[in-house]
Amino acid sequence: MILRDPVHGLLAFESEESRCVPRLLQTEPVQRLRRIKQLGVTSLAFPGAEHTRFAHALGTAHVMQRLLARLRELHDELPYWQRVTSERAEDALSAALLHDVGHGPLSHLFESALPALPHHEHWSTEILLEPSGPVFQALSRADAGRPMRVAELVNGRGELPYLARAVSGVLDVDRCDYLLRDAHATGVRYGAFDLDWLLQSLRFGEGDPAVAPPLAIDGAKGLVAIEEFLLARLFMFQQVYFHKSTRAAERMIKSALALGASCLADGVALDDSPRALAVAARGDRPSLGEYLELDDAVVWQALRAWERASHPVLADLCRRIRSRSLYKTIELFDEDAARPERAVDVARDVARAAGLDPEVYVQLDVAEDTPFSEDAAAPVVVSPHGPPRRLSEVSFLLGRLAGETLSKTRLVLAPELREPVRRALAP
Amino acid sequence: MILRDPVHGLLAFESEESRCVPRLLQTEPVQRLRRIKQLGVTSLAFPGAEHTRFAHALGTAHVMQRLLARLRELHDELPYWQRVTSERAEDALSAALLHDVGHGPLSHLFESALPALPHHEHWSTEILLEPSGPVFQALSRADAGRPMRVAELVNGRGELPYLARAVSGVLDVDRCDYLLRDAHATGVRYGAFDLDWLLQSLRFGEGDPAVAPPLAIDGAKGLVAIEEFLLARLFMFQQVYFHKSTRAAERMIKSALALGASCLADGVALDDSPRALAVAARGDRPSLGEYLELDDAVVWQALRAWERASHPVLADLCRRIRSRSLYKTIELFDEDAARPERAVDVARDVARAAGLDPEVYVQLDVAEDTPFSEDAAAPVVVSPHGPPRRLSEVSFLLGRLAGETLSKTRLVLAPELREPVRRALAP
Amino acid sequence: MILRDPVHGLLAFESEESRCVPRLLQTEPVQRLRRIKQLGVTSLAFPGAEHTRFAHALGTAHVMQRLLARLRELHDELPYWQRVTSERAEDALSAALLHDVGHGPLSHLFESALPALPHHEHWSTEILLEPSGPVFQALSRADAGRPMRVAELVNGRGELPYLARAVSGVLDVDRCDYLLRDAHATGVRYGAFDLDWLLQSLRFGEGDPAVAPPLAIDGAKGLVAIEEFLLARLFMFQQVYFHKSTRAAERMIKSALALGASCLADGVALDDSPRALAVAARGDRPSLGEYLELDDAVVWQALRAWERASHPVLADLCRRIRSRSLYKTIELFDEDAARPERAVDVARDVARAAGLDPEVYVQLDVAEDTPFSEDAAAPVVVSPHGPPRRLSEVSFLLGRLAGETLSKTRLVLAPELREPVRRALAP
Amino acid sequence: MILRDPVHGLLAFESEESRCVPRLLQTEPVQRLRRIKQLGVTSLAFPGAEHTRFAHALGTAHVMQRLLARLRELHDELPYWQRVTSERAEDALSAALLHDVGHGPLSHLFESALPALPHHEHWSTEILLEPSGPVFQALSRADAGRPMRVAELVNGRGELPYLARAVSGVLDVDRCDYLLRDAHATGVRYGAFDLDWLLQSLRFGEGDPAVAPPLAIDGAKGLVAIEEFLLARLFMFQQVYFHKSTRAAERMIKSALALGASCLADGVALDDSPRALAVAARGDRPSLGEYLELDDAVVWQALRAWERASHPVLADLCRRIRSRSLYKTIELFDEDAARPERAVDVARDVARAAGLDPEVYVQLDVAEDTPFSEDAAAPVVVSPHGPPRRLSEVSFLLGRLAGETLSKTRLVLAPELREPVRRALAP
Repeated sequence: MILRDPVHGLLAFESEESRCVPRLLQTEPVQRLRRIKQLGVTSLAFPGAEHTRFAHALGTAHVMQRLLARLRELHDELPYWQRVTSERAEDALSAALLHDVGHGPLSHLFESALPALPHHEHWSTEILLEPSGPVFQALSRADAGRPMRVAELVNGRGELPYLARAVSGVLDVDRCDYLLRDAHATGVRYGAFDLDWLLQSLRFGEGDPAVAPPLAIDGAKGLVAIEEFLLARLFMFQQVYFHKSTRAAERMIKSALALGASCLADGVALDDSPRALAVAARGDRPSLGEYLELDDAVVWQALRAWERASHPVLADLCRRIRSRSLYKTIELFDEDAARPERAVDVARDVARAAGLDPEVYVQLDVAEDTPFSEDAAAPVVVSPHGPPRRLSEVSFLLGRLAGETLSKTRLVLAPELREPVRRALAP
Repeated sequence: MILRDPVHGLLAFESEESRCVPRLLQTEPVQRLRRIKQLGVTSLAFPGAEHTRFAHALGTAHVMQRLLARLRELHDELPYWQRVTSERAEDALSAALLHDVGHGPLSHLFESALPALPHHEHWSTEILLEPSGPVFQALSRADAGRPMRVAELVNGRGELPYLARAVSGVLDVDRCDYLLRDAHATGVRYGAFDLDWLLQSLRFGEGDPAVAPPLAIDGAKGLVAIEEFLLARLFMFQQVYFHKSTRAAERMIKSALALGASCLADGVALDDSPRALAVAARGDRPSLGEYLELDDAVVWQALRAWERASHPVLADLCRRIRSRSLYKTIELFDEDAARPERAVDVARDVARAAGLDPEVYVQLDVAEDTPFSEDAAAPVVVSPHGPPRRLSEVSFLLGRLAGETLSKTRLVLAPELREPVRRALAP
Repeated sequence: MILRDPVHGLLAFESEESRCVPRLLQTEPVQRLRRIKQLGVTSLAFPGAEHTRFAHALGTAHVMQRLLARLRELHDELPYWQRVTSERAEDALSAALLHDVGHGPLSHLFESALPALPHHEHWSTEILLEPSGPVFQALSRADAGRPMRVAELVNGRGELPYLARAVSGVLDVDRCDYLLRDAHATGVRYGAFDLDWLLQSLRFGEGDPAVAPPLAIDGAKGLVAIEEFLLARLFMFQQVYFHKSTRAAERMIKSALALGASCLADGVALDDSPRALAVAARGDRPSLGEYLELDDAVVWQALRAWERASHPVLADLCRRIRSRSLYKTIELFDEDAARPERAVDVARDVARAAGLDPEVYVQLDVAEDTPFSEDAAAPVVVSPHGPPRRLSEVSFLLGRLAGETLSKTRLVLAPELREPVRRALAP
Repeated sequence: MILRDPVHGLLAFESEESRCVPRLLQTEPVQRLRRIKQLGVTSLAFPGAEHTRFAHALGTAHVMQRLLARLRELHDELPYWQRVTSERAEDALSAALLHDVGHGPLSHLFESALPALPHHEHWSTEILLEPSGPVFQALSRADAGRPMRVAELVNGRGELPYLARAVSGVLDVDRCDYLLRDAHATGVRYGAFDLDWLLQSLRFGEGDPAVAPPLAIDGAKGLVAIEEFLLARLFMFQQVYFHKSTRAAERMIKSALALGASCLADGVALDDSPRALAVAARGDRPSLGEYLELDDAVVWQALRAWERASHPVLADLCRRIRSRSLYKTIELFDEDAARPERAVDVARDVARAAGLDPEVYVQLDVAEDTPFSEDAAAPVVVSPHGPPRRLSEVSFLLGRLAGETLSKTRLVLAPELREPVRRALAP
């Protein structure tokens, strides 16, 4: 199978060991990813961000393929039993393709709105291990142990730590693809980094000889590649993932889903509610089949139908979503950001005075990310002369960023409240 | 308003005369374009092709903005009454943004499946001119004559031929944006061309002095820019628009819609059928409101519901579409392509023998495009020395392509028929 | 060895069989290529075109490395003795790196000005095969037969036709690199093509089973890649290689070198004349050492010194070159292009009347290229169904371009002559 | 004048006020920049880095042109006398084109090797203000005050601070072009930043109303653009400007030039020594004419000739340079970097023992840069709500980088000394 890809140019899955990719692509759970956008509602702020989890899954498998080729250039230093065999390569490619197969609609929104619903990692595992399911059957055709090994890898575990972390870790194929793809689709150029150079910089580090070594970075050539990778991630958080309009829209939809679930839990009928939502609202766990019926369109259809709900706040919220009269934000700085309760109280008083439900129409949104935390899993830097060193020791930039947390604190509120709240907050 | 765009980088609509863009963007008919993919089902073959008509509309307005800036560098040679005034600029920007506002779901598929339904050009005009509609109201706020002028421009007519053709012509802002955008999203690099250079190459040609002159191309610098533009279009047709999987999927969906309409016309109830479809199936014209309820999701939902239709062929077709067991193609060459009837007959006999409806499961698909036809509307080439010349005279490439027709003739058929038909056709 | 390259991003020559590349790079004849620009005087018209034959040699070796990797994905279909062994890979990489090692200064200018001087192919062979030379020694270190095998490959011959043609043929690694590199450096975007896709499209065709098969193109996926490759070449000829200012400057320098040689042949002393020039002027063949002293700087230094020559035309020409008062061009069309003698006569009469040497100050320049000629060496198109077909049969574009010749006929003349000649030529 | 540029695509200098660009380009001092590479000897480490100061000068003028267009979108807020008039635009374009016109050969190498020689800023001013020179004449043709105004701007001074700093400041058109151009030519992708977005982010800040305001950055949209710009600079320093091979080669050439000058000062004749060097070696100031004869080729020719010098160290150094047996480096860390004297002493002892001049064959190289220092000239961040804020206050990244210094401390030494010195330094 050969495919055009806007990010990597050419995707070719033609070797014997990559045949698993086209086979898995045919399954309904993977095809379902075509109907889930990678970035949820981000296209409201970045009109190009329409790319799907399906395209990302393919791209991730491609990056894994390139990583495997690179590992094979390096693995002569390892004992035979620690090398990349064909079986391991096929496991890794399958895991890369399937790493997000259990994702719910609208990125992380759906699961975060329904606390009772298991998270997407749970569903991924279930999709992989359900013996009657098409993914399990595609995986186990030639090798009965594969589904379990792939499920382990998807969760960042496995026989070879360097391979497991490459599926899920600081520097994994998932991140490699999504940073490039999200940057390409949004038009934010800062998300790009040099994948060729990053792969070329990989080395094997030192580790417990009883298990395989972790991956490390070559100090002479590779430092800048990993710096750029981590900065690309930081820039994407700053520009896209923490974008105020996206965060505001997410808050609204999450509130609508939670309100809808609470109506359903109270026995109120709501047209076009997805079955999985109704089940989860009652506190039960949806079946796998019910879960797999979920996609972005199903949620949008529900939100549209709920415009006619009897619950006035729910109906209002859904109408606002549909007509794009999105919540606005007020960013809090300094003291207000450190202790936002006062600002929230002030804003909710304004909402109350305006006759709006203060919990729904005024919300606090704290977005946080630590661009680089140098924990045990972070790659070290190796060089032919001298011992391995930590990234923060060697890198001018990472030394100054390690452990630092990027944080945005915002009031998210109905647009008609912004000016009154601003005035009420002014000293 | 400033936006990131993956194709043009930065879209800025901040000047006085471009304020119309954000205003029109707010209207529901323009927002609806977010829910219609630019390339219909093409993402089945090119997983990146998820971009929407909304993003394309914005990009088209951006190209128009750049074109207007270029025209103003040139228009000193024209009499005052032929220049780009602020009013004309606002008309042109509005027309660029709205040129496709009446588009139906799934690119051209929907309208082509329902012969009784007016084409999207009709609906665009109606959206622009319906006095109670939000687009008309946004347009006419400051200038009662604007809706009509914009509607004229959208149809390639208007006071200034050079501006009218820039909205709809051989070298229009619509094409400029969609070629670049489709290339970017599919990953097909051949669709790119040099927009900067093309704009810089524009000149005013000679025309009837009573009206404004048409645009022309500067011979010394611009020839290659227009060659590349026309080749980019050719390459996109070859690679993307005529792609066999896309064409096959389109045939299936078109058949399903036509069968659905015929069921509805016969009074058979079909769940989740869009109202506009039911109305058109009866031979009536849907109301504008009914038409605007259509989007891609509405059609996919119908196709999904029709899997349970009582009409067995319709149900089968919809199930095949959903499970991606798409029709396959056999390309016909030479004699077979020139007179495909024999091949169609042979294939339909095979279908009949297999118990499949021959008209539905075997179809003939002839895709044709003339990459460059040098009609009266084609720009001419001007130079300071010597008279204007036709493109085909001056260009090595275009001289060899003018009037030539690219044509692909294919049998499109159910996958289980391909091998038997191939055998039956073999000499 | 790992290097940054502006065209390919990352050049890595780290495998066992690519160690030859850094070893050969150290030799003085290869280092000399740093001092010869790839495009001669083209930077007069395209200020970015400063890239050297050294960078091109490296890039060509990189493309060969990628081609070898692709061939190894395919070569299982071949008998063992026709496959890409390590020895053959090292031969091919060496040949790619060294293919232009005998190039003279200023691209093809120097050798074309001195008919008695052997062409660069001769010097390449001599550099490879001179037993006392550093290139021969680097090549023969591990394998005494290598210099001869590499020399054969550089000339497009060798045991395996598919490998020999990849060094020098319609679709060779030299062209692949220079088209991309020249496009990158000049800023002409039309020269780019999709190298990944092109490599992926390669197949083995059918051939005499006694020798290895030629390379062919996969019809389903690869047609557009080869079309784009050939069009990129055409565009580069139209835009860059046939650029009027470049051609004019080349004519001037060629005339100056020829006049200088004729002075030297007549025994006139000329300061700073390169020894190889003086020897060739006498009709003798320079030694290899003398030839290798030539580079761009040596020629520029001579031209600068000759401004003070006693020969007035030579001195004038050199002064014009240095002060960039370059010759201008008048392009001839139609009848004038078909029979340019009349135009040349008219122009030379004008020159004579102005007291200028008519042969030097008026020249005829006919630039011609056949973008695609479908000879025996052109790759054919293969597909799993049906026989191999010729490119012109299958490709809409190439069918219309095959055998067609692009031609530019121009008068090249001193700037002060252009207007008078234009007037004299006007009907 | 329209030109292709590999960095910006299209350079067009066609408006009335940009006519100065082609006029100045014709002058010999500007043409001389074609013969000086932008990055000196960097092409030894990055084979693509052959771009010239001439191409950079053109690119800088182009960025200025775009900046002027942006300023004109903003300048309505200013009183008339502070706006961008045609006269000021022409001054600014001229200054951008000419900002480096006095540069010596091999980037900063030449002037740093000859302490007595005035720096390039001096020569730029002299070239601009010498009444008999072609640049002065081109500038003063229409406006006698222009040469002086342009000279002021080149030195970062002028009537309008926002314009003066745009020629020479933290965020100037020089940096904008060279970062992009150096990144493009070396193939280091990290040097790219988003010029469109940066320009769009500019605002006028607050300043003394008696003079024009400085430029500022829009906080909502522009922060990331300035962050990326400053990081691009940091990455270029890390990767390219501080590259060990480049630094080592620069040290060698600087030593050779200094040794050559000292020989000349001592009255030793050295073939092919540039006149300006001989004059400066005697402690005199070369004439402008002598200075303008300098270019890269002149220096390389001298170094080549000096291989036959009687001074054995000078001859050896020149031979090493030519045969690319470049000095190697040992990077010093921690304590060794803080107090490098011990390492230098140890290394020089090793050199002495090996019979090599310790001062020449062992050198200490400390490369330092402060990527972002928030002095009075740094732009501030403005937003519609709240007061202007400093970059380090608002930016997560710049807050952590402000005032921090990147530093590389290295021993640079003859290759045969590296291993012995490493051993001698080992604890």
